[in-house]
Amino acid sequence: MKISLIGTGSFGTSLSLVLADNGHDVIIYGRNSEVVEEINTKHTNSSYLKEVELPSSIKATVDLNEALTHAQLVVLAVPVKAIRLVTRDMHKLLESLGKKVQIVHVAKGLELGTHLRVSEVIAEETTADTVKDISVLSGPSHAEEVAKRSPTTVSVASAQPEYAKIVQDVFMNNYFRVYDNDDMVGVEIGGALKNIIALSIGVIHGLGFGDNAKAAVITRGLQEIARLGTRMGADPLTFTGLAGMGDLIVTATSMHSRNYRCGIMLSEGKSVEQAQEEMNMVVEGVNTTRAAYELAAEYEVEMPITKVLYQFLFEEMSEEEAIYALMLRERTGETDKLKEVMGKQNKEWTRE
Amino acid sequence: MKISLIGTGSFGTSLSLVLADNGHDVIIYGRNSEVVEEINTKHTNSSYLKEVELPSSIKATVDLNEALTHAQLVVLAVPVKAIRLVTRDMHKLLESLGKKVQIVHVAKGLELGTHLRVSEVIAEETTADTVKDISVLSGPSHAEEVAKRSPTTVSVASAQPEYAKIVQDVFMNNYFRVYDNDDMVGVEIGGALKNIIALSIGVIHGLGFGDNAKAAVITRGLQEIARLGTRMGADPLTFTGLAGMGDLIVTATSMHSRNYRCGIMLSEGKSVEQAQEEMNMVVEGVNTTRAAYELAAEYEVEMPITKVLYQFLFEEMSEEEAIYALMLRERTGETDKLKEVMGKQNKEWTRE
Repeated sequence: MKISLIGTGSFGTSLSLVLADNGHDVIIYGRNSEVVEEINTKHTNSSYLKEVELPSSIKATVDLNEALTHAQLVVLAVPVKAIRLVTRDMHKLLESLGKKVQIVHVAKGLELGTHLRVSEVIAEETTADTVKDISVLSGPSHAEEVAKRSPTTVSVASAQPEYAKIVQDVFMNNYFRVYDNDDMVGVEIGGALKNIIALSIGVIHGLGFGDNAKAAVITRGLQEIARLGTRMGADPLTFTGLAGMGDLIVTATSMHSRNYRCGIMLSEGKSVEQAQEEMNMVVEGVNTTRAAYELAAEYEVEMPITKVLYQFLFEEMSEEEAIYALMLRERTGETDKLKEVMGKQNKEWTRE
Repeated sequence: MKISLIGTGSFGTSLSLVLADNGHDVIIYGRNSEVVEEINTKHTNSSYLKEVELPSSIKATVDLNEALTHAQLVVLAVPVKAIRLVTRDMHKLLESLGKKVQIVHVAKGLELGTHLRVSEVIAEETTADTVKDISVLSGPSHAEEVAKRSPTTVSVASAQPEYAKIVQDVFMNNYFRVYDNDDMVGVEIGGALKNIIALSIGVIHGLGFGDNAKAAVITRGLQEIARLGTRMGADPLTFTGLAGMGDLIVTATSMHSRNYRCGIMLSEGKSVEQAQEEMNMVVEGVNTTRAAYELAAEYEVEMPITKVLYQFLFEEMSEEEAIYALMLRERTGETDKLKEVMGKQNKEWTRE
């Protein structure tokens, strides 16, 4: 299939390698001409994926029109804050080309201000004349490992399941395993909100806390993600899957994770801006914390970890206060809050 | 309160420190006279907890009768395979003392052959004349971190919730947070079966696989634990909590975990016996894999990871075959199997 990847970051680049391995005809679009030149001539992208040799069949371009002229399927791999403008540009170009494409996005976050999921932003900026379908691909998938062809599993979801099947077919191979899921809201929310928890775990790690404390926060973190996600229409089972628990674990326990590393830097007294600059990458968790904090208020869902991180990031809560708020909450029944939200029928739902 | 700990292993010893910190009158019973002597004279237990100084108020004894004469509450911290005989001895001594105690156990596994949970084994060997209540304390709690007073959270469950509240009161302090849960089956099954997954993750890590692959196996691992546990009568929500996901994460991602380390040794070609000997500790996951494999057949639940580990441990499956079976399963909808077991009503159970 003719596929164009939008974005030359680490994850997009690693996916181009998967697609080229599968025999597809791949073009990467990027704005940075040096990176594009390097991909075309040296078959590397050393700013984002060190020591990875890309298949020479992958072409890169700085011309979005060229990428869209080529594409039947477009993989959108740009940061959340760039999604709206990139999609708007794509829509105009596709209109003038008089063609329709299928889109799959891999961005993990919520739009600041609107709180929209990425697929909703794309839908607002395109029409049925230019886009056949929008799906999301998400799961525990550090780019560095994907690029080494280390076994990786992800979920793909779409409002139109037949298009999710196409994405599954296109990406699936021996080391990159793709499972379809019919819950688009859950897959997007899981991917977006896990960055909040990964940031929190980075802070906790940086302050010297151990694996017991981290496991507690990860566990409660998934519970609060599931509470909000369920209110927003997700299937709670999705949060027990690859795009929920799987992605949360890999993000919150691995030094590959930029959100985790950003949290460690914050614990050392660095500002968010300093941390992002040092890493040369977007840390989605920062904006997502703000979006989730506002959504929690809107949906009247308790999200204690998100609230503490929000206060720590944006309201000058001290490290001591943050730790106290995270670890020393009052004694309660462990699943009381969950049950309150999930409804009383949970006792029966799996009994036979 | 007057409390006796049965067992001088690392977790029991760390709990004695928590209880002594809380002002309780604590005796530890152990069979090894050198360890008992060391606790009494040097206030250390260097075989199991290096560099930890125990409160001098903690006394140790090799006399089980002395420990039971002392105790109102007994904390049972011995390996699963020792539970039946220790409890039988306790019952006889308590009968002759004419007294009744409350028991809380912290063992994580299932009895080989009978497949009984630890509380069921204890119940078989005691009567209402000697034991008021049996509860279980479980969660993400590496002994090494508890002994350093690093923040730790655990669940406690009992068939009689008022006794779980007593355990909560006795253990709760600033660094050791105890939450009560009314699902005893779930708390015991979660703690027992996570060791299977931790062993598997150790093997995968030892074979050079990355964080993406590990996250996938941890995620599916919890799903198969929840499938079996739910059939055995557990509340599925428990598996999203501290005794389920929390304990699984800490066990499967931390070098403190003996099951994880054992898995690494197995991947290097060592036998189970060699691995256990090198570590000087019981690796509960080995026997639990056998028990869970048999239970999966009995309850007709699919447990693919458990099955692969069983074949790897006991049926000479090769590493290559194991990896293939773990990672390259056929393409399916991600939550299909879960939905099949959990029942069709799951779509509604959290919607409002």
